[in-house]
Amino acid sequence: MSAASVAKRRDRDLVVTVFEQGSSISYSACSMPYRLGGMIDHPMRELVVLTPEDARKRGLDVRTRTRVTGVDAKKKQVHWVEVDSHEEGVESYDELVIATGAVPREAVPVAPSGGVFSLRSLDDGVELEAWLSRQGVERAVVVGAGFIGVELCEAFLARGLEVTLVNRSRHVLRSMLDEPLGHLVADRLEASGVRLVTGSTVSGWVSDDGTVHQVKEAETQKSPEGPALKAGTKQRRVRDGLQAAGELDRPVSRKGLSSQDPKAHPDASPVKQVLIDGKPTATDVVVVATGVQPDPRLAVQAGCRLHQDGSVWVDDSMRTSVKGVWACGDVVSFTHRVTGAPMFLPLALHANRSGRVVGTNLSGGDARFPGVLATAITRFQELEVASTGLTQTMAERHGIEVVVSDVDSETRAGYMPGEHPVRVRMVAELASGRLLGVQMVGAAGTALRIDAAAAMVWMEATLEQVEAMDLAYNPPFSPVWDPLAIAARITEKRRAP
Amino acid sequence: MSAASVAKRRDRDLVVTVFEQGSSISYSACSMPYRLGGMIDHPMRELVVLTPEDARKRGLDVRTRTRVTGVDAKKKQVHWVEVDSHEEGVESYDELVIATGAVPREAVPVAPSGGVFSLRSLDDGVELEAWLSRQGVERAVVVGAGFIGVELCEAFLARGLEVTLVNRSRHVLRSMLDEPLGHLVADRLEASGVRLVTGSTVSGWVSDDGTVHQVKEAETQKSPEGPALKAGTKQRRVRDGLQAAGELDRPVSRKGLSSQDPKAHPDASPVKQVLIDGKPTATDVVVVATGVQPDPRLAVQAGCRLHQDGSVWVDDSMRTSVKGVWACGDVVSFTHRVTGAPMFLPLALHANRSGRVVGTNLSGGDARFPGVLATAITRFQELEVASTGLTQTMAERHGIEVVVSDVDSETRAGYMPGEHPVRVRMVAELASGRLLGVQMVGAAGTALRIDAAAAMVWMEATLEQVEAMDLAYNPPFSPVWDPLAIAARITEKRRAP
Repeated sequence: MSAASVAKRRDRDLVVTVFEQGSSISYSACSMPYRLGGMIDHPMRELVVLTPEDARKRGLDVRTRTRVTGVDAKKKQVHWVEVDSHEEGVESYDELVIATGAVPREAVPVAPSGGVFSLRSLDDGVELEAWLSRQGVERAVVVGAGFIGVELCEAFLARGLEVTLVNRSRHVLRSMLDEPLGHLVADRLEASGVRLVTGSTVSGWVSDDGTVHQVKEAETQKSPEGPALKAGTKQRRVRDGLQAAGELDRPVSRKGLSSQDPKAHPDASPVKQVLIDGKPTATDVVVVATGVQPDPRLAVQAGCRLHQDGSVWVDDSMRTSVKGVWACGDVVSFTHRVTGAPMFLPLALHANRSGRVVGTNLSGGDARFPGVLATAITRFQELEVASTGLTQTMAERHGIEVVVSDVDSETRAGYMPGEHPVRVRMVAELASGRLLGVQMVGAAGTALRIDAAAAMVWMEATLEQVEAMDLAYNPPFSPVWDPLAIAARITEKRRAP
Repeated sequence: MSAASVAKRRDRDLVVTVFEQGSSISYSACSMPYRLGGMIDHPMRELVVLTPEDARKRGLDVRTRTRVTGVDAKKKQVHWVEVDSHEEGVESYDELVIATGAVPREAVPVAPSGGVFSLRSLDDGVELEAWLSRQGVERAVVVGAGFIGVELCEAFLARGLEVTLVNRSRHVLRSMLDEPLGHLVADRLEASGVRLVTGSTVSGWVSDDGTVHQVKEAETQKSPEGPALKAGTKQRRVRDGLQAAGELDRPVSRKGLSSQDPKAHPDASPVKQVLIDGKPTATDVVVVATGVQPDPRLAVQAGCRLHQDGSVWVDDSMRTSVKGVWACGDVVSFTHRVTGAPMFLPLALHANRSGRVVGTNLSGGDARFPGVLATAITRFQELEVASTGLTQTMAERHGIEVVVSDVDSETRAGYMPGEHPVRVRMVAELASGRLLGVQMVGAAGTALRIDAAAAMVWMEATLEQVEAMDLAYNPPFSPVWDPLAIAARITEKRRAP
């Protein structure tokens, strides 16, 4: 929608057609956990940012509940089908934008009608909220300790549920935190009453009627590769069962059932137990939050080159490897500013920004996507969590020699009331002293500090520069020496004693 | 104390002697308004960061209640007198550090024993707090709408007082905000019940016994100039009555009485009225918060060059113009990173940092003071106020051609509960697009954003770079597009349409 809106705004003569298989074109996915937890008064359905009617008023030809089933990049055509009427058609284009996003990577077969959910679409949110309002829902199991998993724990506790969080390891929020900082969050989860089951996986669930829903073993057949991929590149299976255009007229197949189109779910008997390492544990609702993966099926059909993780390759103009085909949003990978390597980072800002780049370029402009730092913030109750740039894990994976320090500091002057500790982990390049990444876990006033760190990493500041900066001080907001300045001083001392 | 502590820590063989005329060596001046407003539980007296005993344990020879009355930079000696015993003595030095700080620039004669205060020393805070606890104190007048004045309004309202704030203009917080943003704060002050009297001055006060305490007209005699000042430099009067070394054995004279040494105050009959533009207004307590000015008397005696505002000139090593004499803290001016010009900026971080620079250099190191951006944050109740870099006013004063924009944004996602607007004023260099300054006034989540802006200005980011940065998003903390990114985009469009 960003691409479409920007293109149309900049060039009123452009005919812009938007196909969307669902009913909603733009909603705040990130806010769903807060709505579920009662922190937002708006009804779930009103978390829509832009309605199809709004978009049509902008001059966009928006076709909701219309699924694109095929792309012919040579003829410059897409084939579509109306989900409800099954009417089919063909649309020609001069330029095609693929913004098919990402889909949940479920470790467990979901079945909303049985109380087993993922949380991606607005429909997912609406159905989950309705389920939580049913009588007798007292126990919840969350699978996966990423952003969504942790935010759901807060929401479910706020609703008075008993919460079990199942994660492969004790390392929670691993996409943004190194393990020691992840442990701080794990400790707080447990202290707040979450039953944290680590080193375990949920292999399936049992419904009230005794049916066992288990993860099917992945099919062994190989997915099609993007033709522009270098020979010999090892490509992971992109999608289970993803094979050919003929399959595109049904929702992306997953391990089990799909929550993308609620109508596709068979009615299921309500969940009674989840199988944690095969052992049954009673529950009334399950949310599988084990991450998402790109949905590149249309891009594959168009002949677009993919990355190994199945995301679509684009240059910094958001052009794919196929002339006349662009891609943006959660289906592509972005260049990380520090490593220079592509990164699958399905976050709202980058989806939005990359769409704006496409929209600008489609309307005669020359915009470039500037890259990402994987900046992220979240919270669990009062605990704020933030990260930007490289973690130690990422640095090691990319062979970058770093110095790392963990520094305990405070978000406010010491004599201000309440608890206000913050742990800062700083990651800097060993040779140059350049700041490469910052992670923070702490009390109120922690999360927003990450923007300062993001600006520092973005501008390639050294630790010495960070320590020298004129950061703000006032007792309710900060100690005299900001946690970032203190951490920079200590890290620099370790780097060059 | 920073200079002394760092020097001693780095070189245990250094003999470090500290002279302090008062009883406290290190206290949190910035927290006094919060303590007065009941937001801090610690008793005022416990806002001490370091006691003389702590410092002595660090190996420092700390001599409190001992006033230095003279400096002989040729003989490398200081003359001192014990305040209580009147015992006098002489101390030789190899290196002298002048950290005499700043003193209130009172527009009204203060008299703590009569309920008319300034708020600089810990004693000021203790006496004011005691006065506020007296029976029948129901009305307060604050003179001056800088940080302290605005913070005191919050504190006095929290105590249930009727508050009148008198300021020369409607432009409040003028050291950090351009006038339009100052008006937002003024509006909030009034909406919260503060009687804001602008375009007015307090010329004096009347005590219960009928005595009228009025501002004495400044004496016309000229202050001594630092000998290194260029001939022809127009120097403003540094201190009323500041003349010669012989006068240094009494507290710095002000317009009227001094609160620096409570013993110097004659007992006064309690305040009954203040004279606002000559007209009497009933009150039970007055705080004069019209800013501070450097106290360079010892530096003048030592022969140190001064700036026009009376602050001591130092290079980036914190050396004065006199060999063997250093200066740091609120008595010096710092170099502004953007203008390159000296700036009198009596804030804790710079005082502390400049002391560390001296301490490092005294102990064989080579530290440099990196300059300032005048970053500042404060609040009035729920309203957060922040600034960094150049305001439009400062830019114009320095002849820098800028583009300025005021952008209304939000500190959180729109559907999150509560009010969360923020006004961002961005100041950028017209020719280059370089970000020179940011001001923000808004709801919770405003103030801490200034650190990101400070990092951007420090690293000389352009508006385009600011817009491109990967700033954090999560509904409770930020909208998808951070207010800084939005403001940068709009400002850049104005700059280069």
